[in-house]
Amino acid sequence: MTGTSPAVRGRFITLEGGEGAGKSTQLRRLSAALAARGIDVVTTREPGGSPGAEEIRGLLVTGETGRWSPVTEALLHTAARRDHLERTVWPALESGRWVLCDRFFDSTMAYQGYGLGLGRGLVETLQRAALGDFRPDLTLILDIDVATGLKRAAARPGGEDRYERMDRAFHQRLREGFLDIARREPERCAVVDADTDADGVEARIRAEVAARLDLAP
Amino acid sequence: MTGTSPAVRGRFITLEGGEGAGKSTQLRRLSAALAARGIDVVTTREPGGSPGAEEIRGLLVTGETGRWSPVTEALLHTAARRDHLERTVWPALESGRWVLCDRFFDSTMAYQGYGLGLGRGLVETLQRAALGDFRPDLTLILDIDVATGLKRAAARPGGEDRYERMDRAFHQRLREGFLDIARREPERCAVVDADTDADGVEARIRAEVAARLDLAP
Repeated sequence: MTGTSPAVRGRFITLEGGEGAGKSTQLRRLSAALAARGIDVVTTREPGGSPGAEEIRGLLVTGETGRWSPVTEALLHTAARRDHLERTVWPALESGRWVLCDRFFDSTMAYQGYGLGLGRGLVETLQRAALGDFRPDLTLILDIDVATGLKRAAARPGGEDRYERMDRAFHQRLREGFLDIARREPERCAVVDADTDADGVEARIRAEVAARLDLAP
Repeated sequence: MTGTSPAVRGRFITLEGGEGAGKSTQLRRLSAALAARGIDVVTTREPGGSPGAEEIRGLLVTGETGRWSPVTEALLHTAARRDHLERTVWPALESGRWVLCDRFFDSTMAYQGYGLGLGRGLVETLQRAALGDFRPDLTLILDIDVATGLKRAAARPGGEDRYERMDRAFHQRLREGFLDIARREPERCAVVDADTDADGVEARIRAEVAARLDLAP
């Protein structure tokens, strides 16, 4: 229906999780570990990851909370995602490179679907419209206690994330949402306990990647 | 599914058509004619019509043709439409005002669905996701010969419309698309021959509005 389905040859790994789970740090470490094995790796992020999608990101991450309704926000994320896939992710995978992505469609499901109460149906409809049957080969869900995650996030310099200002109940729904996504798709999703030091999390991630994508450990 | 369905009390009229059909002129004239009857009228446009949607419009109408793929473009139009509905159209209708809109969802169907070859299915899915069952009370489709319309459009000052640069076959598909939409929904859509002078088109539009919305002529 969307004319997608590229001839994918590389692997597509996404990192997901709430605020302060350490996704960016772990993305860098996993990228380095794969590169050390001789794998040609591209790292990218959502929303964004292509010139057009970065412009859409500008609309999404700036301004007041509530600037967009949850439905509009889900549509903008889906538009950015489609551009990112067409311009960055699919061309890289087709050329045999691996792609590591900081957030992907599970974040739209968790934030808009579970956290902001849109529900699964609309988000699933949008994902299918934009992606067809395309899915990550592996999704690493970094799970962390809400209070610990928010404390870590608050200690970071800068930060454009409007969601950090949402209440505790929102972040709890977000965490439960990611865990529910993992329960529904255990083949694709691995939950990694991110409540320890970065070295421990990295070791768990490397073990999951090796086991699930058939790499020697 | 989207939590929409406001308690609509005003009427919602959309004007549609290809390049150079005279929508903007006719929108002004119809607005004046309804106001002269004592109707409280809001005129608006798509893409745009609310602060957020105007920002999304900026992404859509500037830059090169082919900057966005047809799927991404349809998603961006749908995001802008949702914001426009929530912030401008629905509140006006709920307060009893009539809304006249220069382009609406039929343009996405005609341009992306028919003109750019996306097909009806994906566009329908997106419209339903963003709008639920909400539809215009009346859609006036200004139909004009492609060569005449493009000649008129080229004679206008300024012009940010990337579509004017598309080939003749595209504009023919667009025209056929609008006519097909009208055939599928004759209750909602009135095709108006726009190949004559503005006074003649205005008279036809006023007759359609009076007949279809139960106004004295």
